[in-house]
This record gives sequence, structure tokens and C-alpha cells, in this order.
Amino acid sequence: MPTIEASDLVVRTLGPCRIDSPLAPVLDGRRSSLHCVDEDDLVLFDDTRSMAAARGTGPDQLPGFEPAGPRRRIYFDPAKTRVGIVTCGGLCPGLNDVIRALVLELTSRYGVNRIFGFRNGYQGFIPRYGHGVIDLTPEVVASINEDGGTILGSSRGQQDPNEVVDCLDRMSINILFVIGGDGSMRGAMEIARVIAERDEKIAVVCIPKTIDNDIPFIDRSFGFQTAFSEAAEAIRVAHVEATSAPNGVGVVNVMGRHSGFIALYAALANSDADIVLIPEVPLKLEGEHGLLPYLHRRVIDRGHAVVVVAEGAGQDLLAGEPYATDASGNVKLRDIGPYLCQRINDWFDARNTELNVKYIDPSYMIRGVPANPYDSVYCIRLAHAAVHAAMAGRTEVVVGRWHRRFVHVPIQLAVSHRNQVDPNSDLWLSLLETTGQPASFG
Amino acid sequence: MPTIEASDLVVRTLGPCRIDSPLAPVLDGRRSSLHCVDEDDLVLFDDTRSMAAARGTGPDQLPGFEPAGPRRRIYFDPAKTRVGIVTCGGLCPGLNDVIRALVLELTSRYGVNRIFGFRNGYQGFIPRYGHGVIDLTPEVVASINEDGGTILGSSRGQQDPNEVVDCLDRMSINILFVIGGDGSMRGAMEIARVIAERDEKIAVVCIPKTIDNDIPFIDRSFGFQTAFSEAAEAIRVAHVEATSAPNGVGVVNVMGRHSGFIALYAALANSDADIVLIPEVPLKLEGEHGLLPYLHRRVIDRGHAVVVVAEGAGQDLLAGEPYATDASGNVKLRDIGPYLCQRINDWFDARNTELNVKYIDPSYMIRGVPANPYDSVYCIRLAHAAVHAAMAGRTEVVVGRWHRRFVHVPIQLAVSHRNQVDPNSDLWLSLLETTGQPASFG
Amino acid sequence: MPTIEASDLVVRTLGPCRIDSPLAPVLDGRRSSLHCVDEDDLVLFDDTRSMAAARGTGPDQLPGFEPAGPRRRIYFDPAKTRVGIVTCGGLCPGLNDVIRALVLELTSRYGVNRIFGFRNGYQGFIPRYGHGVIDLTPEVVASINEDGGTILGSSRGQQDPNEVVDCLDRMSINILFVIGGDGSMRGAMEIARVIAERDEKIAVVCIPKTIDNDIPFIDRSFGFQTAFSEAAEAIRVAHVEATSAPNGVGVVNVMGRHSGFIALYAALANSDADIVLIPEVPLKLEGEHGLLPYLHRRVIDRGHAVVVVAEGAGQDLLAGEPYATDASGNVKLRDIGPYLCQRINDWFDARNTELNVKYIDPSYMIRGVPANPYDSVYCIRLAHAAVHAAMAGRTEVVVGRWHRRFVHVPIQLAVSHRNQVDPNSDLWLSLLETTGQPASFG
Amino acid sequence: MPTIEASDLVVRTLGPCRIDSPLAPVLDGRRSSLHCVDEDDLVLFDDTRSMAAARGTGPDQLPGFEPAGPRRRIYFDPAKTRVGIVTCGGLCPGLNDVIRALVLELTSRYGVNRIFGFRNGYQGFIPRYGHGVIDLTPEVVASINEDGGTILGSSRGQQDPNEVVDCLDRMSINILFVIGGDGSMRGAMEIARVIAERDEKIAVVCIPKTIDNDIPFIDRSFGFQTAFSEAAEAIRVAHVEATSAPNGVGVVNVMGRHSGFIALYAALANSDADIVLIPEVPLKLEGEHGLLPYLHRRVIDRGHAVVVVAEGAGQDLLAGEPYATDASGNVKLRDIGPYLCQRINDWFDARNTELNVKYIDPSYMIRGVPANPYDSVYCIRLAHAAVHAAMAGRTEVVVGRWHRRFVHVPIQLAVSHRNQVDPNSDLWLSLLETTGQPASFG
Repeated sequence: MPTIEASDLVVRTLGPCRIDSPLAPVLDGRRSSLHCVDEDDLVLFDDTRSMAAARGTGPDQLPGFEPAGPRRRIYFDPAKTRVGIVTCGGLCPGLNDVIRALVLELTSRYGVNRIFGFRNGYQGFIPRYGHGVIDLTPEVVASINEDGGTILGSSRGQQDPNEVVDCLDRMSINILFVIGGDGSMRGAMEIARVIAERDEKIAVVCIPKTIDNDIPFIDRSFGFQTAFSEAAEAIRVAHVEATSAPNGVGVVNVMGRHSGFIALYAALANSDADIVLIPEVPLKLEGEHGLLPYLHRRVIDRGHAVVVVAEGAGQDLLAGEPYATDASGNVKLRDIGPYLCQRINDWFDARNTELNVKYIDPSYMIRGVPANPYDSVYCIRLAHAAVHAAMAGRTEVVVGRWHRRFVHVPIQLAVSHRNQVDPNSDLWLSLLETTGQPASFG
Repeated sequence: MPTIEASDLVVRTLGPCRIDSPLAPVLDGRRSSLHCVDEDDLVLFDDTRSMAAARGTGPDQLPGFEPAGPRRRIYFDPAKTRVGIVTCGGLCPGLNDVIRALVLELTSRYGVNRIFGFRNGYQGFIPRYGHGVIDLTPEVVASINEDGGTILGSSRGQQDPNEVVDCLDRMSINILFVIGGDGSMRGAMEIARVIAERDEKIAVVCIPKTIDNDIPFIDRSFGFQTAFSEAAEAIRVAHVEATSAPNGVGVVNVMGRHSGFIALYAALANSDADIVLIPEVPLKLEGEHGLLPYLHRRVIDRGHAVVVVAEGAGQDLLAGEPYATDASGNVKLRDIGPYLCQRINDWFDARNTELNVKYIDPSYMIRGVPANPYDSVYCIRLAHAAVHAAMAGRTEVVVGRWHRRFVHVPIQLAVSHRNQVDPNSDLWLSLLETTGQPASFG
Repeated sequence: MPTIEASDLVVRTLGPCRIDSPLAPVLDGRRSSLHCVDEDDLVLFDDTRSMAAARGTGPDQLPGFEPAGPRRRIYFDPAKTRVGIVTCGGLCPGLNDVIRALVLELTSRYGVNRIFGFRNGYQGFIPRYGHGVIDLTPEVVASINEDGGTILGSSRGQQDPNEVVDCLDRMSINILFVIGGDGSMRGAMEIARVIAERDEKIAVVCIPKTIDNDIPFIDRSFGFQTAFSEAAEAIRVAHVEATSAPNGVGVVNVMGRHSGFIALYAALANSDADIVLIPEVPLKLEGEHGLLPYLHRRVIDRGHAVVVVAEGAGQDLLAGEPYATDASGNVKLRDIGPYLCQRINDWFDARNTELNVKYIDPSYMIRGVPANPYDSVYCIRLAHAAVHAAMAGRTEVVVGRWHRRFVHVPIQLAVSHRNQVDPNSDLWLSLLETTGQPASFG
Repeated sequence: MPTIEASDLVVRTLGPCRIDSPLAPVLDGRRSSLHCVDEDDLVLFDDTRSMAAARGTGPDQLPGFEPAGPRRRIYFDPAKTRVGIVTCGGLCPGLNDVIRALVLELTSRYGVNRIFGFRNGYQGFIPRYGHGVIDLTPEVVASINEDGGTILGSSRGQQDPNEVVDCLDRMSINILFVIGGDGSMRGAMEIARVIAERDEKIAVVCIPKTIDNDIPFIDRSFGFQTAFSEAAEAIRVAHVEATSAPNGVGVVNVMGRHSGFIALYAALANSDADIVLIPEVPLKLEGEHGLLPYLHRRVIDRGHAVVVVAEGAGQDLLAGEPYATDASGNVKLRDIGPYLCQRINDWFDARNTELNVKYIDPSYMIRGVPANPYDSVYCIRLAHAAVHAAMAGRTEVVVGRWHRRFVHVPIQLAVSHRNQVDPNSDLWLSLLETTGQPASFG
């Protein structure tokens, strides 16, 4: 990750807050403590003594994030505020929880009553797609959290930010909440840029969505726990299949284009995995320390094995053609799972070893389920923080979580790099200790 | 919570580490980063600029916890090390996960092969109870994580620490892992004191267990997510009952003697609760702002209501007799749940309002289930950290988690106070925003 | 059970069917086969050769139930038909599934568009309770099956059948669907009697609801599988508690006033029960073959035990006072669960044996959950059969299932006795084989 | 299905039963009733009056199955009996439940202590595969029911029945339990034939296994409920995906080579399916009444649709090459799921309609899970019936269930045809009523 300076952490504001918040009474006398951070304080970026010491400043100059949370004074007048919400990119457990909590917080706490849901991602702003707008009332969202997916629909890909802002203007939107991932946050940054160029006062606030947990500065992304729990179930089934046939090998393909968190956590949660492959760790198939001979030995010794592979692992193994990109601009990866099955088959064949490979790709079964209770709580808290940020006039901002404190993160920073598994960390070490696999193959 | 000084964070060590760890090779070149903390570094206690600035020292003098994790050199010689494990107090999801991960880490990573499970809590050390000892091998623990409870059994209450240490001596135990709560950690502190008085070299390492999440410096206790998820299910059922009868009121009693975290998180996860009562917030039943008139109005308006009450809430309401204590020395609370039902009944009766109260106490259904995938991962990581700490000769220590870093916490500090819901925090505020209930009743 | 004659099986009809059913086209050429029964055929009551032979008639005179299912011609004109639905008595998984399937079948297949939901059981017909009526449209019921309980609400107890029929008259209801148990079906019989006395043409069709599976002629009641699955979970938790403490005994109290099916199936599903007590089998606590000495020996031998007790078991053990009845006229039973715990405690105390009893009463957790997939399917099929019966003018009838065929059962017959566990059957024998307990205690 | 005569139902016996069963005492006075069938009675084959009347015999001559259940006298001497168990073919929820219940019943009820598990299907009997034998004791099977799969392993395909019987001879096996499907039962029939030719006294008893529910005379196959419940979950996810994108179409591929029961029940359980395609109903894609124009209209009207397709549906659509067969001799079907997706894509493309197809094949996720509570109970009861049959010397027999009575079915009859969805039945009609789709496409 890049070096972070105090200036990287500064959040943009539309202007001074001059309106008393309806929440002001309950905030009286609030100050920083172990469980809350006062609005005038900062959440330190550094959390080890060596990091702090390296700054070469006094403690009162250490860089920090602006804390999220309700402000005593706000920027927008609730009675006159019009809000838009959009969900972008792939599905993720908890989207409906976030939408619901945004709407309920805006209406019941702030008295904002005009909230519009734009359909099918950024398409929803563009007239030629012909998508209608949904009036988001407390009644409409009452029990949407019980279903997976998003009632707003979603789509991948960017739209012209000028057209988006035209739409916001036509509808007199003051606050736009974007629930989306890396690409969508970049889109939101473009929208905020156009708004600034037009000198308009529209707040753009992102709630970061990534089932892969690859966005930085958010501790852990909403829906991630639900997702890896489902993935753990797939690993369990792979183990059942592997142990129910002579020389059974279960190969489980899970999400994770750039970061192997789902594979890692699912394998830790479920002691049935023997080998875990993630994008962050180089992978060689052949050679003395390659995956295939290791797997072969393991199957010979134990009669079965389970391999968990994140979709982004071993991309360099796949043939030379240039990658395509999907509608969101994500690099489209070749499928490592089937490729791996093929190579395993060939390897065992060449050695005349019986083999029963079962390939499991739980895919949509992971992302289409409702959020589990923990993720539900987390979604509510993220949404509340987003509403507070927007009402206080913060813009071009992502609601993050740093060291278990909700904070405001400039979009620029949130898209500066990806959160990835550090092969040097205790987390990965715990995985190695659990599976017994070598630090890397090759 | 008390003021924390640097000296409060110092962990006791049995002696210098002179043996190369089998893990040393994978630790080469490791240093503090966003994802791991080097063994020579500290995890800062303060995480806001105001807290750090108030210290009045340079950043290199800020107080911090010793990081958990593997050391390049260790204190105990694995080939000669004998380990004891004991589980104490009430059940909690994840106990078997912790036992299993301790055993697998000790055997497969460090080569420690003599591990003994003591039966039924501290009773297991005392000859007159006649409990045998369990040899804990990888085979024995292979799939215990799929079951709730603890294969070692448990019991409440202390035993004479001298007798415990006599037992450790007789069995030549070098490391004792205590998986237990506040009372059990105090017991472990006494045992460590006797060991020190006898000038013996036995490490005492605690893995903190509290289904109520009321132990400080551990971010969140293992099993807590599983527990509140089950509690959320009880709230859902209470809502079903309340809405299926005229003027239905569901009262759900959940664990939480001193801390209302289960009630709070379960209610947030499940939008069905209308009123949440926790020990940290004063409760009055009658009077203009009392609970009963509020509940009465709500039932009249909506036809139903769900009340979630932590067992420790409203204790001052219960009649005057002095409290008894249970075998662990925990103050035994009167049951607020049935008392509340009675008072609600009386109140509605006196006002001639039809009422259908349904009382739900999920009790054992919450604590007897296996850990969910997240808690399973957390248990493994706690156990790994505990093994590393013990092998490096740390003693009288609790494995904690601070700002998402695993750390070593002196037992003394871990039992110095309880982790409680701060009614001033965003967390409680989110609950108030979700239920719409007033900040307090009375 | 009583002797059944052919005349007992005759279903009452409001009059000849003269209207072509909208379903007629798909029924063309339909005749009895292994998978369907033609409307002119009968489902044989007897299913063993000895039963059939004892009739002393030819095969073409064997008694049988009228098959359920769509008729080629119907009695009511869909365009003019008005329908009422009411749910009565305690909750049961699947109530909303039945309501939903009734509404969707009536509207989409028959074109009946005026369907009214009466609130809170038979109270809903009586003006003085002031309950409104719910318009049941496809939109209203679209996803109610995802929730437990009943959107109509329920209540126990009878109401004056004359007042009920007055209400049906005022609202010009042609068909009344009653979803309820033994008491509610008796109430429906009274309503049908009043209708007949008034010479009105209102069909009264019951969908039998009993979480205890104690209504005869329905193979298995809807919600029963869901219910015993939840009960099995409680037994699992009891086992965890029992094995996690010295001499632990888990006592699980499950529903079953008159029939022990939930206890039996839950214990079979979950091999953790050591003793199962049901109303159908006599119970003595003391004496050579009594429960208490048996349990004592078992705990001494194994260190733990799990006892599952149906609420109606051992009622004669409870003290002499006359029983009260609840609002539905059900005999109110004393609670056997706590009584048993007390007696177990006393027995072990008197023998100086340590004991840790944990009492689990999952109660509402069993009945408030949504139907599982099997029960969902079963509810839909019951509801479809009920709609076909009503449209064809059948009245005073219960939708039953006999030997896996849906049939029409006269209410009179359905309330003539209870379905109970036969201690002579293979089913109970399988339980004895599984737990190893004696055929009876005492 | 074929015409069934009384002679088709006669079960073969190894010889007269001359040994008192240990179960005899509990069977005293037992006779046929609604809940059990005496061993001297028969379970009638016919269950409608028209079927019985067409026989042209007296009721005492109506054809019937021999009832399953314990006999007062048995053929094998338990102390000298040696038993083999083998699991064949694809996985199915409940295999371990059956194995466990066989072992526990044999040991604890009959006192049979030498039970051998053969590994990996019929391969386990053949020396050249080198699979060892597992001693099946109560300890080994104690908690295997908590895991999916089979601890014995499985494989597809037949082996030379002479070699199998050689193995049985070498090991002095008296009873062989085969848990397997259509192909495996044919194999068992061959084995029984060789045994008969050699004039040996070895009982061959099958417990029918078919996740597709396509074996006749068993009411419903074990594991089927678990399987369709999982499939229903996949449909739910498909619905989430379909509704979360513009013109979303979810295609769910479920098991069902010859019978569409899983597709049908899963779709009924889960109201999210719009179109269900099964092998029993002809399918045309194009033309006025074809699937594609119907789907196109539906997506245009509603914006989304979910299609559930059993793997055996529409086989005639797939290109002309001759089918291969897999190792079990099952005809290997081309994959209809991906083919359908392709055709849907082409159809929408050609009409310039936006489309977002999501293809879900839950495959192993359905068959690798543990049995649900209902299936667990059913497995136990099947296993108990199988043990009773074998101990009483029945051979070449399948444990079946007919009209909810456990019965003995000659293997010959069980493999004579497949159980399929009758498009004329109320069951399929209920599906049509639920989805609103036409009786067939084309």
C-alpha cells in the first residue's frame, strides 16, 4: 500500500454546517472514549509504536481519519432535502439491508421524506435505458432485508458522469448514495468532479461494497462474512465428495479476483481444505515444489484431498491471449478452476493413478443469499454513518472503518489500492498451520 | 474504565527465549505492517489523536500492548513440554474449536505431543472429584469443532490454587491453558501467583470466554456472533407470536448479566424488536416516561410489540432481599423476564386492555450450538496466538485483540473491569434509531 | 379408533354441480391410476388383506373416501363467489402457506376475486371484538409464506355459531375455509349445522391444523415436519449441555398433549435422546422398573443422559386437583417438565449423587418458524384440494390424506378420535431400538 | 407401469424360520391395525375401489405386498451371523444414517457383532482394487450421520457377480446389504442369482437409494426431501439474481435424469419458479407454443423469469450423436442447462431484447449434505426394516414403502420400471397452478 500522509485523509465538505441536527440533544456532552469518537477528534491512522514513531511529529500531529457519526450541526435542511440511492456492480449479501437502513434513518431520524431509488446501477440515471425511479418509503423497504439481492437492481459499467449529474439536477437531488465497489466508487468520484465543476451542492457518499473484501480502510466489507460462510459450506461438500470415492479430489472455485480473503477464511472456518490457492501467492504447478506433485503425494498418502482456489489465483498459468474486460472494466479472468481440474487429471493420468475429481463452483449461491445477523448489523451501522456524513455535507467520501471505528475516507484514497492477503501476516500463517501446505508452490 | 498506563500493559515472562522456534524460517524478514506486527513493536493503546495527545509524551513513548504471534525464539523446548488444557464456567459456542486448534497447533507446528485435558473445569485438578484426564491427540480432536459444548466438560467455581498447582507439579505440566471467563481468569491469576511463589516455570495462558462479550481488550469475544445470531432468531419468533394474536406482546429474555451486547446486537440484526432493555441503561416501569405506559401506547397504536430484555437489566426493580451468588461467585440475579411479564399483565389488566403475552427464554439454545464460520476462524486465531505466547514463556496473560490486532493482555488488566455498552456510543445510538425507543425509560 | 363403516365416509354436498369448471380441459380423459384418482372412484379405507377380508363384501363394496381433487363440473359460479378464510388456535408452521395457496388458487385458477380474511380466529366474525376484515389479494399474500405465524392472527376458543353465520350472511360469503385443529373443526361443524338449519348454501371446508399430528385421516399434519425438526435441535443442545457437566441430565419438554409424535420423531431424528416419554405409554417414576432408578443407573454408567418428554406424558403423576381448561376447551395440563426435573433432583439428592439438570422448553421456537420446504409443498397441495372441494360444493368436510391420496373426510369423522402413537407399532419399536429404553416404565 | 399380479409380489426366502427372535417378547399379541401390519397379513396393492373391483376376486384374494417388520421367529442365528454392507452409485443424503442404523440394530437388538463395510461400491469385493474392509462397530458409526456422503465410499458400475460371491464366501458372509439405485439393485439381483446357483444361504437385501425419487414402490426415497430442499434454495438465489438485473433470467439445472420430482417439488416449495421443465413432459423451444416465445413474453411483461430444468428434460433437442453411458450403465445425457442458456441468449439477441442470463447448477451442493431430520428418521426405519427382513431369511428383496406401510418388494419388481411424474396427476396440476405455465411447451 502507498505511504499515507495526513493530507490524504482530508475529507471534502460542501460548506459550513449551520443547521441544528435533530440528533443534537442526544449528543450533548459526548466526547471521545473507548466506544465513541467526538466529531472534533481524529482516529489515528497508525496503530503501532513503530509506525507512530516514524512520523517524526508530536502525538497531536499524528495523521488520522475524520470520525464518522452524527454531528451536532448539519449542512442540509432535512425538510428540503432530496436523496438518491443507487446500487452498482455484482450482488453482495446485505445490499437490501443498506438500502433499508438508509431510508429508515433518513426518514425517522432526520425527517427526510423524498428518497428515490435509481434502477439498475448507473443505467438508472440515463434516460435512454428507460428505467423508472422507485419511491423509497419506510413501507417499501420494511422487510426487504429478508431477501438477497437488491430491490433497485444493479448493472456493471460506467455511464457518462455529465449525464448522471444532468439527471441529479433535473430531479433536484441533494444527496447521492452510491453502494458499489472499486469501479463504482471511481464513477462516483467522476460524478463528484462534475458536480464540483458545475459548482453545485450535491453530496456524493459511497458505501463500499465488495464481496471479495478487497477495498482498503474498511476493516471488513459488508456481506463478506455471509459470503465466506457459504463458501465454507461448499468446501464441506467437496470434502464429502472427495472422501466418498477412491482417490477423490474436490476442487472448489470461490470468488476473489485480486484478493483471496474468501478462500482463506472459508478454508480456516472449515478444516476440510488441504490446499488453498490465492492470487497473492505465486503458483507453480510442476517442478519439485509444484502443486501437482504435492497433491499427488497427498492423495496417495490419504486417499483424498480438497483444493480451494480463488478465481484470481494462478492467472499467469493461463494461456497468452490478452485479457478481455467486462462491462465494469474489471479484467476478465480465464477460469482457473476448470483449468486446474484438467491439469490434475492429466497429471494423475500420466502416472496411472486412479482419480475422481469433483469440481464445485458455488458462485451465485454465495452472493445471492440474505446477510447473516452480523452483516445485517454492520450494514445498518454503515448506513447510519453514511447518512450522518451526507447530512453534514461531506462529499466524495466513503464510509470506512479503521481499527473498529467508523471513519470518513476520501474516495481517492479508497480506490488508491486493493486490500489483499499479506502472505507475511499471522492470518495467512494460521492458514498454513491449518492446512499444513507449504508457504507457496513453486 | 480505569486509566491505563504503560506499566499496566507489561506482560510477565518466565525467562529469556533461547530456543529457535520451528516457525523461525517463515518469520524471516517479518516487520510491522498493516497486516502484522513485529515482535519488537507495540500495538498502541490509544487510537484517537485526543487520547494520544493527552499522554504528554513523544509517539515513541505511547503506551502499547505487546503483539501476539509467533516468536523467532521460544522459551520451552517442544520435545520436553507437557501441556494442560481446561475449560471453565458456562458453555459458549467455540469451546471445542479452541481446544482443537490448541492441540493441532501444538502438535503439528511445535511438535509438542503430551497434551492433557482436565475434566469439568477446575474440579479436574482436584483428586477428590475423581475426574480422569483426557489425552488430547490430533485424532481425538479431529472433528470436535462440529459439536457445541466442550469435550472436556466444565464446571463453575474456584478450587484451592495450591491444590491445582500440586496437580500441575505431579503431572509435570509446563503450560496451562485456561479457557474461561472473568471468574476463571481470576482463578488462573491465583494459580500463577502460587506458581510464582514456588518459583516454578509453568506458563498460565488464558483464552477469554464470555458469551456476553463483557471482557475488555478483546474486541469481541469468541462465540458472541453465534450467540446473538441465535438470539435474533428468538426475537423473530417473538414477533411472529406477537403479530398473530390480538394485542400480542413478545418478551424475549437473553443472556447479559452485566452487559447488554447480545440484546443490542440481536435486536439490531433483527428489526422486529420495539424495545430493548440492557443493564447499562436505567429502567423505570411506571411514571410519565416509564416502560409500561410507553409499551401500552405502542400496543394500542400498532396492535403488538416485542420487548427484548437482557437478564441483568432492571435489577434494582426486583425486591429487596440480598442477592445470592452461584458456585462461580457470580452474583445470582433474580429473573427480570418473568417479573416483567407479570408487571405488563397487571398494567394492561388495570386498564382493561386485552393482552396476549408470550415469554421466550432461548437460554441453552443460544450457548449450546456449534460456532458459526466467523467464530470458528476467530477461535483458531485466538488459539494459535495463545500457543505462540505460551511457547515464548509468557504467563499470567490473556490473549486479547485490540483494534483488530491480536495482543497479550496481563490477566490483572483483563479482570480490572467489564466491557459494557456505552449508552453514549454510536452503537447504542443506532439501536435507538432502529427501535425508535427513548434513550432511557424513567 | 372406532369401527369405520362406509356410511361414516360419506361427504355432504350443497347440491348438484352444474357449472363447467375452468379446469375441465386439463382433466379430459383423466382416470384412476397410481398417481391420481378419478372423481368417480373411491380411495379404499382398508389397506391390508385382513381388514378387507373382514368386511365380508365384494371388492366393489369396500368402503372408501371420496378422492379430493378438481372436478369437471363445479357447484359455485366463480364470478359470483365470495370467500372467507379464518385461522384458529395455536400457531403452526405453514399457516401462511395455506392462506397464500388458497388465495392464489381461487384467483388465478377459478377467477374468484372476493376473498376476505377474518382476524384472530372465530373472534373475527363477532362484531363486539371490533376486528376488521382483510382483503386477501394475490399482492397481499405474495410472500407471506416466508414468515411464520398467520397474517390473519388467531385466537383460541369458540364463538356462538349463530353469530358467525349472521356475519357470513351479512357479507354474503359462499365458502368458508377454517384452518384449525380439533376444537376449531368442532366449531366449524356447529357453523355448518346452523347454515343447514337456515337452509343456506354456504360451504364449510376445513384444513386440519395440528402441530402435534393428532388429527386422524391426514397421514401427517402440515407443519409437523418443521416442528419436530426444531425439536430435534433442542435435543441436540440438551445433549451438549448434558455431556459438558459432571452427571449432566438434559430434560427437553416438547409439545404433545395427547400424542407423542413430536417427541418420538425428534428423538429418532436425533440420536441424542436416551429416554422418551409420551402420553400414550404409562409412566411410573419409582419402583423397580420406574424411570428414576433407570435414569440413575444410566447416569452412573455413562455420566450423562437426555430425557425427552411430551407435555401430555405422565399426567396422572401430577397432583389431584381437577384440571382447568383453556379458552379453546382444551384440558389444561400441569407442566410435566419442571415436575420431572424436581423429582430427578430429589432422587439423586437422596442418593448423594452429583447431578446437573438442564431444562429446555423450546416451546414457541418450534411453532413460530416458517414451514420447511416439504411442509410448504404439502400446504399448497392441501389448499388446492380444499379449493377444489369447496368449489364443487362439498361442505362440513375436512381435507385429509389417506395412504398418500388426498381425500374428503367428513368433519364428524375427523373429530371422532385422536391420532396417537401406537406402542404396538414398528414406529415406536424403532424408537425403543434406538434409545434402548424399556417398552414402558413401571 | 406394468400390470401387477399377486405372483409379482412374492418374496423369496432362504428357508423356514426356526429360531426365536430376541424381539419376540415385544411382538406378543401384535396384529394388524391402522399402525402396524402383522407378519401373516398382506399390504394391499390396490388402493382405489376401481382397481380392486377390476381384479374380479374376493377381498381375501386381492394381491398384496408382504409387510416389513420384525418376525417372531428368524432364519439366522445372530451369534453366528456375519454381515456385509456396501454403498453404490452417486451420493445421496442419508447414506451414513442407513449404515449407522443397520449396524446399531444388528448389534444392539439382534446381537450380531461381525459386520463388515466393503469400500467403494462393488469394487470393494474385487481383490484387484485392493480396497480394505472396515469393521463396522457401534463406536465407528456413532456419529457418522452428522456428515454427508458415505464412510464406505462408493463407485459406479457393476463387477462380475461371481467374483463378488467368491468374496462373500471367503469371508463367510451370511447377509449382504446393498444400498444403491436401479443399476446397483440389478447387480444385487445378479449376485443373488449366483448365490442361488451355488445353493448357498446368503441373504441379499437392498435399501433403495435414488436422489431422483425414481424407484417405484417406495413412496418416496430417502434423501429426497433433503435434496429438493437444497434445490429450492438454488431457485431462491436464481430469483434474486433474475430480479437484480434488467431482464434477468435465472436458469437452474437440477438432478433428474428420468424423473422430474426434484424440479417439481423444489419449484412448488419455492414460489420463485416461473417455468419448470421435466423429462416426463415433451418440450419444444420454438413455434407458437414453444418455450422461447413464452419466456420472451414473460420477461417483457415482468422484467425477469426463473426457469428450472431437470437434467433429463428435452433430451431430444440435443444433437443427434448416440449417447454414451457412464460406468454404471446410465445413459449419459448431454447437458440441457447450458444448451438452454445458449438458445435463450440467441432468441433474445435475434429480437434485440436485453437479457441477463444467470446459470446455476447446484449439483454436488444438493447431494453432499447430511440428511434433514425427516430423512434421518426415514433412513432409520428403512434400515430397521432391512435388518428384520434379512434376519428372517428374505433375499433378493428391496425394502419398500407402499401407502405408508413398510413392505418387502422383490428386486425384480423394483427394477421393472421407473417412478415418474404423472403429468395427469394432481401433483403436476398443482405445479401448473403455481407457476401458471401451460401443460406443455410445443
